[in-house]
Amino acid sequence: MTRSDTLRVAVIGTGKMGADHVRRIQGVVSGARVSAVVDVDAERAKAVAARVDGCTAYTDPVTAMAADDVDAVLIASPGPAHEAALLAALERDLPVLCEKPLTPDAASALRVLEAERRLGHRRVQVGFMRRYDPEYVRLKALLNTGQLGRPLLLHHRHRNAASPPFFTSEMLISDSVAHETDVTRWLLGQEITAVTVLRPRPSVNAPDGLQDPQFVVFETDAGVVVDVEIFVNCGFGYQVQAEVVCERGTARIGDGHAMVTNMAGRWGGTIAQDFTDRFADAYDRELQAWADATRRGEVTGPSVWDGYAAAAVCEAGVRALTDGGRVAVELVERPGLYA
Amino acid sequence: MTRSDTLRVAVIGTGKMGADHVRRIQGVVSGARVSAVVDVDAERAKAVAARVDGCTAYTDPVTAMAADDVDAVLIASPGPAHEAALLAALERDLPVLCEKPLTPDAASALRVLEAERRLGHRRVQVGFMRRYDPEYVRLKALLNTGQLGRPLLLHHRHRNAASPPFFTSEMLISDSVAHETDVTRWLLGQEITAVTVLRPRPSVNAPDGLQDPQFVVFETDAGVVVDVEIFVNCGFGYQVQAEVVCERGTARIGDGHAMVTNMAGRWGGTIAQDFTDRFADAYDRELQAWADATRRGEVTGPSVWDGYAAAAVCEAGVRALTDGGRVAVELVERPGLYA
Amino acid sequence: MTRSDTLRVAVIGTGKMGADHVRRIQGVVSGARVSAVVDVDAERAKAVAARVDGCTAYTDPVTAMAADDVDAVLIASPGPAHEAALLAALERDLPVLCEKPLTPDAASALRVLEAERRLGHRRVQVGFMRRYDPEYVRLKALLNTGQLGRPLLLHHRHRNAASPPFFTSEMLISDSVAHETDVTRWLLGQEITAVTVLRPRPSVNAPDGLQDPQFVVFETDAGVVVDVEIFVNCGFGYQVQAEVVCERGTARIGDGHAMVTNMAGRWGGTIAQDFTDRFADAYDRELQAWADATRRGEVTGPSVWDGYAAAAVCEAGVRALTDGGRVAVELVERPGLYA
Amino acid sequence: MTRSDTLRVAVIGTGKMGADHVRRIQGVVSGARVSAVVDVDAERAKAVAARVDGCTAYTDPVTAMAADDVDAVLIASPGPAHEAALLAALERDLPVLCEKPLTPDAASALRVLEAERRLGHRRVQVGFMRRYDPEYVRLKALLNTGQLGRPLLLHHRHRNAASPPFFTSEMLISDSVAHETDVTRWLLGQEITAVTVLRPRPSVNAPDGLQDPQFVVFETDAGVVVDVEIFVNCGFGYQVQAEVVCERGTARIGDGHAMVTNMAGRWGGTIAQDFTDRFADAYDRELQAWADATRRGEVTGPSVWDGYAAAAVCEAGVRALTDGGRVAVELVERPGLYA
Repeated sequence: MTRSDTLRVAVIGTGKMGADHVRRIQGVVSGARVSAVVDVDAERAKAVAARVDGCTAYTDPVTAMAADDVDAVLIASPGPAHEAALLAALERDLPVLCEKPLTPDAASALRVLEAERRLGHRRVQVGFMRRYDPEYVRLKALLNTGQLGRPLLLHHRHRNAASPPFFTSEMLISDSVAHETDVTRWLLGQEITAVTVLRPRPSVNAPDGLQDPQFVVFETDAGVVVDVEIFVNCGFGYQVQAEVVCERGTARIGDGHAMVTNMAGRWGGTIAQDFTDRFADAYDRELQAWADATRRGEVTGPSVWDGYAAAAVCEAGVRALTDGGRVAVELVERPGLYA
Repeated sequence: MTRSDTLRVAVIGTGKMGADHVRRIQGVVSGARVSAVVDVDAERAKAVAARVDGCTAYTDPVTAMAADDVDAVLIASPGPAHEAALLAALERDLPVLCEKPLTPDAASALRVLEAERRLGHRRVQVGFMRRYDPEYVRLKALLNTGQLGRPLLLHHRHRNAASPPFFTSEMLISDSVAHETDVTRWLLGQEITAVTVLRPRPSVNAPDGLQDPQFVVFETDAGVVVDVEIFVNCGFGYQVQAEVVCERGTARIGDGHAMVTNMAGRWGGTIAQDFTDRFADAYDRELQAWADATRRGEVTGPSVWDGYAAAAVCEAGVRALTDGGRVAVELVERPGLYA
Repeated sequence: MTRSDTLRVAVIGTGKMGADHVRRIQGVVSGARVSAVVDVDAERAKAVAARVDGCTAYTDPVTAMAADDVDAVLIASPGPAHEAALLAALERDLPVLCEKPLTPDAASALRVLEAERRLGHRRVQVGFMRRYDPEYVRLKALLNTGQLGRPLLLHHRHRNAASPPFFTSEMLISDSVAHETDVTRWLLGQEITAVTVLRPRPSVNAPDGLQDPQFVVFETDAGVVVDVEIFVNCGFGYQVQAEVVCERGTARIGDGHAMVTNMAGRWGGTIAQDFTDRFADAYDRELQAWADATRRGEVTGPSVWDGYAAAAVCEAGVRALTDGGRVAVELVERPGLYA
Repeated sequence: MTRSDTLRVAVIGTGKMGADHVRRIQGVVSGARVSAVVDVDAERAKAVAARVDGCTAYTDPVTAMAADDVDAVLIASPGPAHEAALLAALERDLPVLCEKPLTPDAASALRVLEAERRLGHRRVQVGFMRRYDPEYVRLKALLNTGQLGRPLLLHHRHRNAASPPFFTSEMLISDSVAHETDVTRWLLGQEITAVTVLRPRPSVNAPDGLQDPQFVVFETDAGVVVDVEIFVNCGFGYQVQAEVVCERGTARIGDGHAMVTNMAGRWGGTIAQDFTDRFADAYDRELQAWADATRRGEVTGPSVWDGYAAAAVCEAGVRALTDGGRVAVELVERPGLYA
């Protein structure tokens, strides 16, 4: 397609995340519009479509992908539905932005990887939106200059005010730490080779039986030690911080000092309450970058390999949580497509 | 026009600012595109138009405004050219976003005000983009809650790394402090009634004869005292900060703490080097908000009255700089259109 | 006296400040002890003396100064009593640390200055304890390196949670801004030549009739413009901040970031509630430095000239508050003793 | 001894730390003086004694302790000499402040503990001076209020600009992390039950063969997980930070924001270069508190039990470093004297 065409996107899944992406494509992203929405719940799909000019509602992803006015696909359905949608999109050679996780486990991620490898060129971008957050971008840019020397340690903090009712102890790894899995690999340009999970005393504010917080330690193939505090019922807000310790200095992001007040004996500021607040900008930039690249016929974001590696690390992490001790991460050989 | 139409914009002036707005409308803003560019320099206009699909180059603003594919006008030409372009746009009842200043002096601003008043509805938005900066927006929102009580004092810092060669002592007021003039009025919801300008010893780094820095004091019609440090050759970067002191607390913006490093005996971060870095986001949001409102048939941003009041305050400020002492600001009665 | 002797101090005035100094000399300062306390209230003097071994209570300062076991004098009585005590101490050639203000007005300060000048050597140190605060000391040290270039502007913030019942509008200048008067002169090494006072709308939380806050502008003999926000009923705590703007950079103190918490949607820290908290360390260091210097036979701290200059600036400031406009500060020629 | 007496202290060891304590007792601490100094190097002892009035030089600690003018003992000799000096002081029932470590290993610490237990009352304070640092004190006070709920995680950062030439990989634990061992136990009021040590890739700036940095994980008897980054060749300065993560919030110390500058494109401040800068105040307060308590006949600081527990944790840590994996910490039953 040429640069001047508007990208016509089919959004699969119209839950909270999908509906937000529809709003974003229509009201924020330049050069793209939503031409189709898909949901197993036909009423919900119709309701969303009705608010968008020239948008058709579907219940079947494959039918939507076959429509004349669909140039690209955004997958925001629940994780277990991703594999089928991804394989269908690859079959049609359609560009895809797939919300994380790519798929719920490493085996299914490998099947997607294999399909794209057979296709012979990249079509899929995974929705690891932190790579588009201005602070992470600045951190990576600084690391790349080499001013700080090589990284030796990396500290992550990942805190949510409260976890949703369905959250399990395993999901602290597979759903939450999944983000740190990706930004660790991306910031360092290294693979994670082992995972250890420590289990502190759970907070009284965590639901019964939920192991929250957890303290996760990664080791990388270049010897960097990475720790992640994951605490999904911290009560006070949503906070994502990282500090890289290098040979000649450290760099830290996520302090968030935008407005400082003095009031009633205290100075300070507010803490974002959820990811839509903290990472609003990252989502906007992610979709704009995807639309721009897609219109140029390119794929520039996190790849299927990144989605697969995250799944493999999370699987090892869940095993470490359950069994205790250190669990090695095993990856298949990296195909040339993702070199 | 209906919500689904793409707004077709004529950009008048293709200098640094105009060209940047063309880029912004094409690549960032959703729901708008550039259909015409105008510049007295025909070659420059053509060069810009050539990079945009469906964009025509003009040398005369009035001809461009008459084109079928022009729904709205963005004025980014030099200040002295604004009045004619504004009056022409108002004659055609076209929506306008006019870069600040509205016009170079209060008398010409009044003529624009009178033209819009005769038209009977608002069509012009002035480019005071700080009103769209997330930090200023948060500050105003906090003031509006009343949590801090009423404002009593307001401190501004406005620092540029270096001034351009053509900058005069008067321009520190009319070009730089013009921004503080507007955000003061907007944050407080008050008019400025008097200006005093103090002249510290000039910096050795300021060009010969330039009175830099200056220290400007405003008084408002509700008794708030406002001070502005304006320093356009501070050397270290671009910094815009504000602190409102209220009856029960204070709030401060502009500290800019995004990434903190430890290196070579120092902790800290970088300082933005110019306004395109510090206020990139504000410009993006300003244009998106203008495009969205225009497509809804509304005008929501800073009005011609705001442009006129800024011009009147700056005129008083320049007199205070030249003559010394305190200079009162005289405004005409505010027309009902801007109530 | 030789280095090994313990300095025996007579403390004049046993109100809140005097009693605190007795505690400090006894429990904090090395190489000094309180041998006499003086108060017009004989009972109060006795009560304080009873808690200190080898300490005698007096009601008359002159009698106390004549005692064999008194090596030095600390004056902490009300300001109007200072002149007589200072002249008596100078008559006996006794080292003195005199709480600020030196005396309540410039005329009486001049009489003390004349007495010391006749004595021919310095004996009196004035209690401007901010000069001993680690942050101010660091700020002055940085200015002295010349790294930032010459100072051009200086911004002060001085906020108290609430004013005592007896506080008048004039005392915001003569009692509170007196500190900024001294640190301005000391940081810059310049004299203040003019004062302007602006009167914002008073806070609803200020007692009826109290002009609070005020905004004070100093000009110095080297052309630096200095502003002081003084707000003695700010409600939220005690805050003293300063920022020097120089030709190549700025430096700011007083932000106070010691412990940062995340709690209930907010990050930040506590604000000191009064000067005994914020400046506890400065008082300790001031007295230790005075005791050490006195035992070496030296006077190293703020001089009678400093006390006189502060009084003259404050008098001009009070006039500026009352009469409006800019009031010039007139100083006598500086005697060689204070060169 | 009665409150009014000056405490006469014998300082054992006149190396860098001992000489600094002599200076501190003479010039900073109120109510104490140095009456004896002891060093195996007779010349060094004499040189130090010569600078202090009424101070005698010794080469033998026991002889010094027997002198009439010695009320208390400060041990600042190398660690291997501590046990003998401690036992001699306990034999004479003399109050002792013993620099950390109490003794180099748990077995010798136990012998000291047994001697004090037999004596029947506490006489020994261990020099864990961080307990006197104003920031740690504030952190513990906040934890004690219960506002944050119970602690779940504790993050420590401990960074030195460069390690001394004799430093070994084991000393990162036994010498450096020894401090975190104590503040962890003190802040939480819990014992450490297991230690794990991870070995990141060593920095190119660490001497050959030195495992630097290390990442140490403690588990406590109440289920808190504690991590320590120890990095003794970080290059940029000396930095000690801690963040406690509790059920309702977190609190962090060690950011050190005293003066903030804008210069050459960067904002920020300086980093302390060594512990004498960062913890100067803590040492002053520690010695003053010890002198005050000793004059009252009390022992209030860290006990022999604390010294023993630190030694036991460090021994386990060194084993974890050498052998890999998780090493449990075994403590004897706590005697009633230290309940």
